[in-house]
Amino acid sequence: MAAGERSSSDPFAPFAESYDAWYSTPLGAYADRVEKALLRQALDPLPGEEFLEVGSGTGHQALWLAAQGVRVVGVEPSEAMRRVAEDKLARASAEIRERVRFLAGVGERLPFPEAEFSAVYAVTALEFVADPSAVVREMWRVLVPGGRLVVGAIAGEGAWGELYREKGRDPESVYHGARFYTEEELRALIRDLPGAGRPAVLRGLYVSPSVREPAGRVCLDELEAQAEGRERPGFLVLRVEKMR
Amino acid sequence: MAAGERSSSDPFAPFAESYDAWYSTPLGAYADRVEKALLRQALDPLPGEEFLEVGSGTGHQALWLAAQGVRVVGVEPSEAMRRVAEDKLARASAEIRERVRFLAGVGERLPFPEAEFSAVYAVTALEFVADPSAVVREMWRVLVPGGRLVVGAIAGEGAWGELYREKGRDPESVYHGARFYTEEELRALIRDLPGAGRPAVLRGLYVSPSVREPAGRVCLDELEAQAEGRERPGFLVLRVEKMR
Repeated sequence: MAAGERSSSDPFAPFAESYDAWYSTPLGAYADRVEKALLRQALDPLPGEEFLEVGSGTGHQALWLAAQGVRVVGVEPSEAMRRVAEDKLARASAEIRERVRFLAGVGERLPFPEAEFSAVYAVTALEFVADPSAVVREMWRVLVPGGRLVVGAIAGEGAWGELYREKGRDPESVYHGARFYTEEELRALIRDLPGAGRPAVLRGLYVSPSVREPAGRVCLDELEAQAEGRERPGFLVLRVEKMR
Repeated sequence: MAAGERSSSDPFAPFAESYDAWYSTPLGAYADRVEKALLRQALDPLPGEEFLEVGSGTGHQALWLAAQGVRVVGVEPSEAMRRVAEDKLARASAEIRERVRFLAGVGERLPFPEAEFSAVYAVTALEFVADPSAVVREMWRVLVPGGRLVVGAIAGEGAWGELYREKGRDPESVYHGARFYTEEELRALIRDLPGAGRPAVLRGLYVSPSVREPAGRVCLDELEAQAEGRERPGFLVLRVEKMR
């Protein structure tokens, strides 16, 4: 976490309660849909599998996956974010409550033995960690052979990356101190993992962050841009398999 | 190919000239966009790579990938379909012409040595072959270690599969004698390939084949359905990596 410049010991505390409000805006709901479509293709979850999320935040992705039958453990250092996640979990169905656990912890030191999870993932989380290489190595360590590591991140070289970088200039912003990776930087992070297969990169969110009303036309453009592999996507999902 | 019931030695001959007309209809253009977005995520093509397409038909996918810098060899048994592909290639840019070759041949006996291509793929092609297991084994043989095998197919259990199966009852239809696979049957086809990683399954085309005007709302539903992994997609893309 990019702490140190903030007085609070939990730099996410001022943002936790309102963090999910983004998903209620038209653009946020649209971006969420695109990102989840990509994440789902990368994670390919099967009911009954056990996943680990690093930087589980308000539990948004963990609860979504649990609704599809996956068991998810979320690790999150911010107590305020964990509290929001726990509140949402408490209001979820009994089935989902039974499948999800949130734990305090940092990605650099995961409290699990080796080869514990069939998928380990992080979504817009490496942006905030102190040592992204150490986090990815830890994620890899707790992954079973044959499992997949999935990283979703705002594309640093796209319009969304520029927007968040700009927001981050404000010391009061949640993005202050965050870093935004280019595709090449993300590829470099997972390049030297022992026994890694060829990484697949899924790209999406081609809509401009300044679009007024994301709707049908924007969606058709999205599919077209994904099919063409057009440049400057807003969101990247990397998937790499751990060889058996 | 499901020949034998047709008098022609090239069962695709009556359909070759009009095969691409589907892509000019609103629904066909939409389906094409969805399928290519999935195929692209599965193939993850990098400029300069060398791909093999089995059942390259009218060259639709090969030309699309070549436009993104990939070199593609297409193998296709139907002379009529190859002729359409060659005509399209002749009208393409010099760059694309230089990257694509179409060859006569069947998937059961590919005229290449082992470990020749970084990706080998087939799109709506296994539906028409005589021995799908033999074709997949051949595709696997010519794939380099670390490469990926990608199969795109109409989902046999979805509404599109039902439609094509119904069309196939007509002995005059191109789908007569074709078979449509369930996801489980496709998984079984690639299950026992030596050194195969865990298969990823990408799903899409949730639109009904009887929709009148596929447009914005349909597209937003598509992303939502993909994110949720909803049942009864119309199109499946399987991807499996050959371990190094």
